Amino acid sequence: MKAVVFDGILACRDVPAPEEKGSVVLSVEKAGICGTDLAIACGHLRAKTPLILGHEIFGMVRNAPQGRSDLIGKRAVTEINIFCGRCVYCKMGLNTHCEKVQALGIDRDGGFAEYVSTRPENIHLVPDSITDEEAVFTEPLAAAIQLTKVCPVFPDSTWAVVGPGRMGLLVLQVLRQYNPRVLVAIGHEGKKLEMARQLGARAFDTKDEAKALDLTGGTKFDNVVEATGTPEGLSQAMAIIRPRGTVHVKSTHGLPVQFDATKVAVDELRIQGSRCGPFDEAIALLGSRAVGVKQMITHRYPLERCAEAFETAASKSAIKTIFEIQ
Amino acid sequence: MKAVVFDGILACRDVPAPEEKGSVVLSVEKAGICGTDLAIACGHLRAKTPLILGHEIFGMVRNAPQGRSDLIGKRAVTEINIFCGRCVYCKMGLNTHCEKVQALGIDRDGGFAEYVSTRPENIHLVPDSITDEEAVFTEPLAAAIQLTKVCPVFPDSTWAVVGPGRMGLLVLQVLRQYNPRVLVAIGHEGKKLEMARQLGARAFDTKDEAKALDLTGGTKFDNVVEATGTPEGLSQAMAIIRPRGTVHVKSTHGLPVQFDATKVAVDELRIQGSRCGPFDEAIALLGSRAVGVKQMITHRYPLERCAEAFETAASKSAIKTIFEIQ
Repeated sequence: MKAVVFDGILACRDVPAPEEKGSVVLSVEKAGICGTDLAIACGHLRAKTPLILGHEIFGMVRNAPQGRSDLIGKRAVTEINIFCGRCVYCKMGLNTHCEKVQALGIDRDGGFAEYVSTRPENIHLVPDSITDEEAVFTEPLAAAIQLTKVCPVFPDSTWAVVGPGRMGLLVLQVLRQYNPRVLVAIGHEGKKLEMARQLGARAFDTKDEAKALDLTGGTKFDNVVEATGTPEGLSQAMAIIRPRGTVHVKSTHGLPVQFDATKVAVDELRIQGSRCGPFDEAIALLGSRAVGVKQMITHRYPLERCAEAFETAASKSAIKTIFEIQ
Repeated sequence: MKAVVFDGILACRDVPAPEEKGSVVLSVEKAGICGTDLAIACGHLRAKTPLILGHEIFGMVRNAPQGRSDLIGKRAVTEINIFCGRCVYCKMGLNTHCEKVQALGIDRDGGFAEYVSTRPENIHLVPDSITDEEAVFTEPLAAAIQLTKVCPVFPDSTWAVVGPGRMGLLVLQVLRQYNPRVLVAIGHEGKKLEMARQLGARAFDTKDEAKALDLTGGTKFDNVVEATGTPEGLSQAMAIIRPRGTVHVKSTHGLPVQFDATKVAVDELRIQGSRCGPFDEAIALLGSRAVGVKQMITHRYPLERCAEAFETAASKSAIKTIFEIQ
């Protein structure tokens, strides 16, 4: 089968299709490129190589283990963390942090390929009300939702999303569900800020940050989401967080960050990370049309043009870049 | 009066005694040197200069405004944050984060002096069961307690304190009150680790960190307190925190830190700062003898020997260094 393999360099290659006992095989229809993929491909995030990248996967179930033949032929997405179920973290209920976790597209072969192998318990069926392209957003939307699982979103709170890109625009739409008192996007004027506005947020160019603060009644923000995908994002976020506020970290660029830890102590800040989230809630949100994702897709590529696809995905002109596979 | 003034350099000088309408004047009996003082004196933390340093202050009330003459002659400590009571943060109940905050020894003259001026509402009386030297620990002990105000301490949780120095040893003793399942100190073998052991913690040299992890049943720690006072401490703490764990930041060294923000996202970590805490609880803990502080005092100096005192306080040989003033 064709697959985008990373082994120091990125290339579309012919590789054997996956065969694994007890697993579900999906034919991948569409798959999205995420910041993590870019960080692996440019060597900033370590991954087990050679590796088929890709963890935002929509496909059709082609094969399933005995007893789960009900899945065959169904439209599906897959959670990315294959966990052991027996380690201390699994026993704590932290499956996504399993000591032996094998994340699709990070620790084991992922979905930028014609076929991908996963576990039956990781499969979620996709209702017909959600299109193939929309379904690709299940994984990143779940990650956006996860932010609300580790910290509550109070309706009278103020929120800024720094970096309204492929993750930030999803976070904005998730936060909008909670009707926070103020919800703004801060970034560089252009397509992304325009889309943030279309999606119901007040949006400000970085240089007009002071105007964003006008909306909060004189305080800095209660919550700031760092979704720039850059090492500079955290300082930007920390510049507009109020004392006792929470900065939510969504970037996984893999680069060291210059950090003002003293400010964290003095202003009693909370820096809160979050990663993989609930697929069922993401599917429900997509199905309810409460979240608009289709307009976020700016570029589509076949696997063969993977180098160009990654270059585009890393550029300022792209919001969401996806592979069209089947 | 004599006072330790910082104005680019640190010196004991003769300066006018404070006179301020509506204020309480304390004759300072004893005052403790803290990491913040050291960070200001070496230029890492910005302060308004010329400045009399010092914010861990015990003294006798010598003057009080009309209506508060009851305070005169009493043994007292003072909270350090002079707040406006009218700004957005004061109205949120975040007095210690007042927009116009004037912290003693940071934004306005502090207590390394024969007299210090403060507000009546910042005064807490010290019962006779607490000695003068013990009372000096009220402010840092309150700061240690504050860690438990911003995050709960569960009895079945595991805790490591990295850097059992003047702050870490107080944090250890505060945490001990909650009977956590595992409570360890991690540092460099020597006087500080010895004292951590005397104070009831299991203590490990940094190079024996793996042995500390043996106590937790195979997981990294639920909570790690970074109290090293160095920019390296945060990475040390992050190396032993479990996914979804909390790293508590207590250091205020003022230096930039190399930070793995991606790990925060991937492991869904919380980095939580805390600073000034409840004086009433600190006084109650000191009075109950549940916290031992006297043995932490390793060095005592008069104001005139301030340069030597600061040098000592910054050295590995010192735990707590105090000025004996009256």
